[in-house]
Amino acid sequence: MKVGIVGSTGLVGQQFIRLLSRHPYFEISELVASEESANKPYEDAVENKIRRIPEKVRKKSVSAIDDELDCRVIFSALPSKVAREAERDLVERGHIVLTNASAHRMESHVPLVIPEVNPDHIGLIEELDREDGEGFIVANPNCSVIQLAIALKPIHEKFGIKKIDVVTLQALSGAGYDGVGALEAADNVIPYIPNEEEKIKEEIPKLFGELNGGEINREKFRISSSCNRVNISDGHLENVSIELEEETSTSEVKKALEEFRGLPQDLPSSPETPIKFSEEKDRPQPRVDLGGDTPMSVHVGRLREDNILDYKFIVLGHNTIRGAAGASILNAELLYSKGLVQDQKVVSG
Amino acid sequence: MKVGIVGSTGLVGQQFIRLLSRHPYFEISELVASEESANKPYEDAVENKIRRIPEKVRKKSVSAIDDELDCRVIFSALPSKVAREAERDLVERGHIVLTNASAHRMESHVPLVIPEVNPDHIGLIEELDREDGEGFIVANPNCSVIQLAIALKPIHEKFGIKKIDVVTLQALSGAGYDGVGALEAADNVIPYIPNEEEKIKEEIPKLFGELNGGEINREKFRISSSCNRVNISDGHLENVSIELEEETSTSEVKKALEEFRGLPQDLPSSPETPIKFSEEKDRPQPRVDLGGDTPMSVHVGRLREDNILDYKFIVLGHNTIRGAAGASILNAELLYSKGLVQDQKVVSG
Amino acid sequence: MKVGIVGSTGLVGQQFIRLLSRHPYFEISELVASEESANKPYEDAVENKIRRIPEKVRKKSVSAIDDELDCRVIFSALPSKVAREAERDLVERGHIVLTNASAHRMESHVPLVIPEVNPDHIGLIEELDREDGEGFIVANPNCSVIQLAIALKPIHEKFGIKKIDVVTLQALSGAGYDGVGALEAADNVIPYIPNEEEKIKEEIPKLFGELNGGEINREKFRISSSCNRVNISDGHLENVSIELEEETSTSEVKKALEEFRGLPQDLPSSPETPIKFSEEKDRPQPRVDLGGDTPMSVHVGRLREDNILDYKFIVLGHNTIRGAAGASILNAELLYSKGLVQDQKVVSG
Amino acid sequence: MKVGIVGSTGLVGQQFIRLLSRHPYFEISELVASEESANKPYEDAVENKIRRIPEKVRKKSVSAIDDELDCRVIFSALPSKVAREAERDLVERGHIVLTNASAHRMESHVPLVIPEVNPDHIGLIEELDREDGEGFIVANPNCSVIQLAIALKPIHEKFGIKKIDVVTLQALSGAGYDGVGALEAADNVIPYIPNEEEKIKEEIPKLFGELNGGEINREKFRISSSCNRVNISDGHLENVSIELEEETSTSEVKKALEEFRGLPQDLPSSPETPIKFSEEKDRPQPRVDLGGDTPMSVHVGRLREDNILDYKFIVLGHNTIRGAAGASILNAELLYSKGLVQDQKVVSG
Repeated sequence: MKVGIVGSTGLVGQQFIRLLSRHPYFEISELVASEESANKPYEDAVENKIRRIPEKVRKKSVSAIDDELDCRVIFSALPSKVAREAERDLVERGHIVLTNASAHRMESHVPLVIPEVNPDHIGLIEELDREDGEGFIVANPNCSVIQLAIALKPIHEKFGIKKIDVVTLQALSGAGYDGVGALEAADNVIPYIPNEEEKIKEEIPKLFGELNGGEINREKFRISSSCNRVNISDGHLENVSIELEEETSTSEVKKALEEFRGLPQDLPSSPETPIKFSEEKDRPQPRVDLGGDTPMSVHVGRLREDNILDYKFIVLGHNTIRGAAGASILNAELLYSKGLVQDQKVVSG
Repeated sequence: MKVGIVGSTGLVGQQFIRLLSRHPYFEISELVASEESANKPYEDAVENKIRRIPEKVRKKSVSAIDDELDCRVIFSALPSKVAREAERDLVERGHIVLTNASAHRMESHVPLVIPEVNPDHIGLIEELDREDGEGFIVANPNCSVIQLAIALKPIHEKFGIKKIDVVTLQALSGAGYDGVGALEAADNVIPYIPNEEEKIKEEIPKLFGELNGGEINREKFRISSSCNRVNISDGHLENVSIELEEETSTSEVKKALEEFRGLPQDLPSSPETPIKFSEEKDRPQPRVDLGGDTPMSVHVGRLREDNILDYKFIVLGHNTIRGAAGASILNAELLYSKGLVQDQKVVSG
Repeated sequence: MKVGIVGSTGLVGQQFIRLLSRHPYFEISELVASEESANKPYEDAVENKIRRIPEKVRKKSVSAIDDELDCRVIFSALPSKVAREAERDLVERGHIVLTNASAHRMESHVPLVIPEVNPDHIGLIEELDREDGEGFIVANPNCSVIQLAIALKPIHEKFGIKKIDVVTLQALSGAGYDGVGALEAADNVIPYIPNEEEKIKEEIPKLFGELNGGEINREKFRISSSCNRVNISDGHLENVSIELEEETSTSEVKKALEEFRGLPQDLPSSPETPIKFSEEKDRPQPRVDLGGDTPMSVHVGRLREDNILDYKFIVLGHNTIRGAAGASILNAELLYSKGLVQDQKVVSG
Repeated sequence: MKVGIVGSTGLVGQQFIRLLSRHPYFEISELVASEESANKPYEDAVENKIRRIPEKVRKKSVSAIDDELDCRVIFSALPSKVAREAERDLVERGHIVLTNASAHRMESHVPLVIPEVNPDHIGLIEELDREDGEGFIVANPNCSVIQLAIALKPIHEKFGIKKIDVVTLQALSGAGYDGVGALEAADNVIPYIPNEEEKIKEEIPKLFGELNGGEINREKFRISSSCNRVNISDGHLENVSIELEEETSTSEVKKALEEFRGLPQDLPSSPETPIKFSEEKDRPQPRVDLGGDTPMSVHVGRLREDNILDYKFIVLGHNTIRGAAGASILNAELLYSKGLVQDQKVVSG
């Protein structure tokens, strides 16, 4: 199945390319970038080649977003400001947009999905009142939200979560190329990330909400979030504490985390297990536990009782793979496995 | 007044030297290091010259701890394991020990003091049942505790604190020279610091306790602490949230922080104000706000309401100055200003 | 004497402010920034507050460059592209421009000066055929050049240098705020800095050239330069090897370096000695040897014989102080001490 | 074929394990560590788990070096001081030692081999006067030497190299776990690495020497080497300039680099091509070009004419794979392919 990438020259765009260049279902047919890059070979359109560009797309000619695109499915790595209109426009032209941008996440007709957490929310698109030839959007949450939601899922399911307190230490790649200057980052911590705390507080309740009659209600959590940018290249690490509805024990919570299996354990991009639980006292750590063969797993460790809420632990995830490009691709695989991207209503032509 | 430094070749020892080399009250008469360094010139005894060594101590001959030391007052930068016995021994020999080591902090006869927080605890030493010729110990808290306690002090005084939740991002210098390997630190976060969470939970209640009949009771707080090592050279940054006894407002809490003045604002090492409050949305930051002219101030910013507890904010302090060597020196200045280091009971000879 | 700063909101602009805010001769009367910042308070005009802003300029209103500026002497921290026209225009309006920009450095009527290296080149401005009311430009070299030239000066004077091979490891602050993205820098080395190798090859010969009849000839060196960006905040470190005309010995070269005194050792910004020579086998190092009290000294160490050329050594300097803002200010002090900024021909009005 | 690893708990030891845990020829039968680790499960014997430990060796029991080892071939990641005696002893006990340690590299009866550079030096072991049941040592060069030698090989072969000037920027992992403290490395460059400059000057001539009658002579180069430690986790980058015997052109040198194929392009650990040549003006870069699928290739870029010698360029290699564990393994594969590890003379029993 042919797929395209809009925002293909940015950091997440390059990650999409890397992951899709050897995908069993999808084949990149369109690399879309800004007007001025159109018709250039991809490698000339990319200014910041921080990731290796796979050989086979280097010379591929870049399209502009207004070109007729030879694919139904589009992955979007657009910046949010541009995404608002551009993705809406792609939908009107009949495309299915799997987006990592935040622009449409909180809209009532857009499912916000993590296959391991709320795969049923995909059902929303079947209840949409789509025009002839119209496509739809499926969004994945923000990077700091995805890994948190996966860690919370089995605990919420078993014991009910009431309160969530999270303090994040987020990598530089989460800000894209131009998000943080090298000199701001060097030997420094920045205890603020624009809009990040808000995203956590908005997206978590939607993810755990119930789909009911074409509407997704919001799960009632009390959430406190504090976000810090630290000087590492990849990997968001989160200090999480939670209050539960039911009384339980550390060993029961641990068991829930370890035994958790997502619905889609057999999709091509599914990790072996959604959660890797670490027993060691000083783990997980970004440079040690990420990368390698398991970038789609979320790492949880240091589970212990908390003096204020009930339990606390560390969550670590690869922000540009599990938290961005890989998340959209996993969503596309979920749609594909359910036959939803082959949906004939979608594309007019 | 002559003073000595034990543990003088370590990281905090070097910081003591730097700060004392231009002090108005104190003059370094003894640099004490391990047996094998004795009688060497100081600069040859120091293996890791990470800080600049002031010209005037470079050639000074190093003493061993069992030598007769030509000073009543001793600053201790010993590692905790060594400190336990060595500091006790110095006290028996009549010395007044201002220690940064954790070994004796929680002992009932040792005042644990921050001049801006609990200067009255110094009174404990006058109630001690000291033998003839015996000295005493005054300890300062752990680096992560000092800056936290200073930020909490004016809030606790005005509104009463019930719960404290703190997640720290701590600099490499807090671990000393050999605490963390370069490769462990590089491009990484370590979500664990040995004993650090415990120290916060033990020391804060003692600092805010009441001195009463020769005993210091413990203030009743519920405290949750999570400690992370980040890859920066200096400066601990803390994400703090608190629950209060009295209802108030962000602006009232801010006012309390800004107007706070410690008792000893006129000691040589006192900062202009104990707390510098930052209005900017992304501050304080270690590389920007520390160093310079105000290493003894604690920086507070991002004060805002919290969804789970009542308020939250960021605290930043210079861990080897405000959080270690500078803290001991400020304690010595407090003793000096109260005439306690001139106390004739102290030294037998 | 009143002075202004153009390009005052950038990284070097902020360094100018910090250094001039406590200067014995100069007082900042004008902070000039782009059109859209005009009339704003300085602290609102600055987007990236990486350096602390001195209290007294925070609220100062920013001017636009076309405003009438209340000062004869202007320090320029403009980006080179803007500097070309803007500085020329300021000269026509009668200003004396002390520039850190590269735009005019190689022009025949612009003295390129380091007070310790070629103070006599200042004489060029007296031979200029200036129009009534016209000012002039004095430039300082590029950051990587200044520290190199200072280290070479005493050696060239005594033994004659024929060949210079330099491999630099340059700090992030040398690229300004937006020069390098945080993600490019993280855990990385970039073995290329645009135009940097060329600047070294052009500027060194002009600095060591002779002023003769209104012209500066070029000293004949063979120069090889290779420039690398490393992930440190401040400090350029250079691996230098040289071939000499005269035969000598390591100890003689060392003696020349240690005994070197610049002409202007008594200017306010002059370092105690232009060169600090280090005997230790692993020094100088940026984080250890820079900062503190001697940011205007250049550090030289690891002097030894070379197998290919004659000698090699390490040079280290603080790139935004000794290599930029401090260099312009030292030039201004030299002009001031020679009575050249009081020159009545300069300002028309 | 069964193999063992001595020094298996260190940084390079762990890299050996990672690479050998999925090797087509070799199977790890012995993990050897210090006396006090003997009989512990491997994961408990390792203190610094900076690399991921493959599942299948985690519980494997560790042997002591004096135990009878169930394998003829031993990979050595011992520290040099320990290696001197221990490797000699292993040889006497009949083992074939593939060592990354420097202890025996320069000994006349030890071949120092890079399969792409001097595979014929392996012949030396057939000329050794070995006792019954005695083994032998094959060493690989120092990490900074291997990548340099590979880049020089095709150039020397075609045009003859007379002089080599190299300035290195070396990663923290080159120093092992305890080589550099985190605080020494943070925001810093250390312009000195113990013994590194000497190793480059000694090992390069042996690698390019001729094996003749049981002796390896030394190629006559003039070499200048300067070594710097930079704050990156993996990857040594070298600024190299060379003088040639024959006149040629940049494009001819480039052609030689690009067309170079090592003898053993078909060994399991051989890179697709020994050298990857980069055309981009700011490459190769450690975080971008290393890792991924080609850790055994050496990256060369920025080839250009030099003002002092003839040509200069950048060389980059992965120091713990291509420069250490991978190098020993490639040597073992070369021996294996030549039938030399099956040699019956070797093991007595």
